[in-house]
Amino acid sequence: MVGGGQLARMTHEAGIPLGLKFKLLSDTPQDSAAQVVSEVVIGDYRDLDTLRAFAQGCDVITFDHEHVPTEHLRALEADGIPVRPGPDALVHAQDKGVMRAKLTEIGAPCPRHRIVSDPADAAAFAREVGGFPVILKTVRGGYDGKGVWVVRSEADAADPFRAGVPVLAEEKVDFVRELAANIVRSPHGQAVAYPVVESIQVDGVCDTVIAPAPELAEELAGEAQQLALRIAAELDVVGHLAVELFETRDGRILVNELAMRPHNSGHWTQDGAITSQFANHVRAVLDLPLGDPRPRAPWTVMCNVLGGDYPDMYQAYLHCMARDPQLKIHMYGKDVKPGRKVGHVNTYGDDLADVRERARHAADYLRGTITE
Amino acid sequence: MVGGGQLARMTHEAGIPLGLKFKLLSDTPQDSAAQVVSEVVIGDYRDLDTLRAFAQGCDVITFDHEHVPTEHLRALEADGIPVRPGPDALVHAQDKGVMRAKLTEIGAPCPRHRIVSDPADAAAFAREVGGFPVILKTVRGGYDGKGVWVVRSEADAADPFRAGVPVLAEEKVDFVRELAANIVRSPHGQAVAYPVVESIQVDGVCDTVIAPAPELAEELAGEAQQLALRIAAELDVVGHLAVELFETRDGRILVNELAMRPHNSGHWTQDGAITSQFANHVRAVLDLPLGDPRPRAPWTVMCNVLGGDYPDMYQAYLHCMARDPQLKIHMYGKDVKPGRKVGHVNTYGDDLADVRERARHAADYLRGTITE
Repeated sequence: MVGGGQLARMTHEAGIPLGLKFKLLSDTPQDSAAQVVSEVVIGDYRDLDTLRAFAQGCDVITFDHEHVPTEHLRALEADGIPVRPGPDALVHAQDKGVMRAKLTEIGAPCPRHRIVSDPADAAAFAREVGGFPVILKTVRGGYDGKGVWVVRSEADAADPFRAGVPVLAEEKVDFVRELAANIVRSPHGQAVAYPVVESIQVDGVCDTVIAPAPELAEELAGEAQQLALRIAAELDVVGHLAVELFETRDGRILVNELAMRPHNSGHWTQDGAITSQFANHVRAVLDLPLGDPRPRAPWTVMCNVLGGDYPDMYQAYLHCMARDPQLKIHMYGKDVKPGRKVGHVNTYGDDLADVRERARHAADYLRGTITE
Repeated sequence: MVGGGQLARMTHEAGIPLGLKFKLLSDTPQDSAAQVVSEVVIGDYRDLDTLRAFAQGCDVITFDHEHVPTEHLRALEADGIPVRPGPDALVHAQDKGVMRAKLTEIGAPCPRHRIVSDPADAAAFAREVGGFPVILKTVRGGYDGKGVWVVRSEADAADPFRAGVPVLAEEKVDFVRELAANIVRSPHGQAVAYPVVESIQVDGVCDTVIAPAPELAEELAGEAQQLALRIAAELDVVGHLAVELFETRDGRILVNELAMRPHNSGHWTQDGAITSQFANHVRAVLDLPLGDPRPRAPWTVMCNVLGGDYPDMYQAYLHCMARDPQLKIHMYGKDVKPGRKVGHVNTYGDDLADVRERARHAADYLRGTITE
């Protein structure tokens, strides 16, 4: 697996029961996954020679993030190393311009959008969609709200162009909430769909995920799952695909983003589904039959833990574990820095209000924003 | 953790979500746990200098097996390293003579037993308990049926004495089945009890575990849990304690063996309990509040996978995963050798017959004893 973040850490954890020999390419030995994996190569994934040396002896390569250059992935494939998801699929998660063009081509519902050349063009786009505000995004390099601007005027639209990367303009969707339709697809075309979840963002960062999305119309849930399955098939995705969606005020769904790897909106599956997204990603990448994606409890809630005041978590664990013996803590071994995602918690049960309160309390306590 | 077997492998897996920094002392780099842990020291646990060097920088030491010499554990404690379970507890799992003496002292029900000095003394013991056959055990060094003899005559009783280790004689109990009462206890005295399970042995090796034990009288189940909790408290056990029990034809329970570490009879908890034995062992060893031991499904069945015909498991996975998308496979990364425990499977659900058939089928298929 290329990339040493928490997704690689949790994928390794899920691969242990299969007897998987897991090899990691990590930026530093301190990275989240590098702390827990036996076979770690330290190196830069942007360097083709490093990637080639790493890939020696691997049966298949997969990813913790979408930042490996597409041409490097093609070079690995030319060397005979299976790359899953492959470069032709992954480019749609790397480049928002390519993603929007493809989704439009296959008729997947998207916010109105086009590539814009400068602030004046952004203003022209705003007029086409009914006026400011509009969303501007660099087509590459963004995550967790970075590389995304809500622009309220032409004068406000200069920043996105400074990076010299093409800029995509999108209408600001009048949405009631965000959903995610997560599926896993294998090379032989088998796919499984997880229940559609509600994803609540705070300051552009995922904060809470509720599985399944409460009070979501069954028809709309089915439509979202079908859409995700169709996107995966059309783009030939292998592994986990997260389709982040807007649910609009008028009852439609629109695709916001795609991620082709295990995803924050699927962390609930570790404790809430029969087969986790990590286990199924591994199975897909190895072209093994996929595991059952169905939930094990009526409700599962995931809350992210952001870095706060605690240099280590021991004292906070004492409180949280004593308060809630059913709480599931997943920490990433990262140094705690304010605002950084350092872990998440999962809770599950029959009563959504209770399940949600328990996850919220634990995440806030582990961050240090509450002390009782 | 001292010892690189599958118990260490699965304890590491359970420690990853806590952000635990896991350090392993392993005999070889190929050992089951050494394949998946980042920080591995290769060395011999019987050598005190090796143990001392390994323990440097550890907050606490725990074990994958019971074979570390008691005096070495005392030396580590004298160095100021917390050892959990401690030597005064662990000696009861290391030495069957000490264990029987202590259990008798605290009034725990045991088969009739005494240390015997030679075959003639074993024959005298047989007369005391109603005749041959009797069980002879070396007090140290046995596991999975090794170091245990069913002796039918005085002439038959020579072998156990050849090792020069004291020999314990026990009556051959007329039992209807074997049970295990598994509990976890922390240094501050909190303890949790898992449901009592039925454990089915084949050729002296654990084959199947059913949780909870079917049709076990509620009163007897409670008695078994209370007994395990009392033994843990009296012996000051920290971590997971497995109390292997005989259920006699006349409705009593008798203690067969003790194990102070995660145990084969608790593997079902990985997929069948809210908190696994491995997660709770880690929490106990770190003196953190314990997790909920209750089951997540009406029935969970574990079957061990013994080494068979397959040099690798990929082809067998294709069949088993396609046949049963809910199947939970746990392989240990060991070279497959005939008869060796190389993994286990867990299944769970509402219908015991179905749950048991699925586990049995998968274990047999992975071993290669069936091919469809």
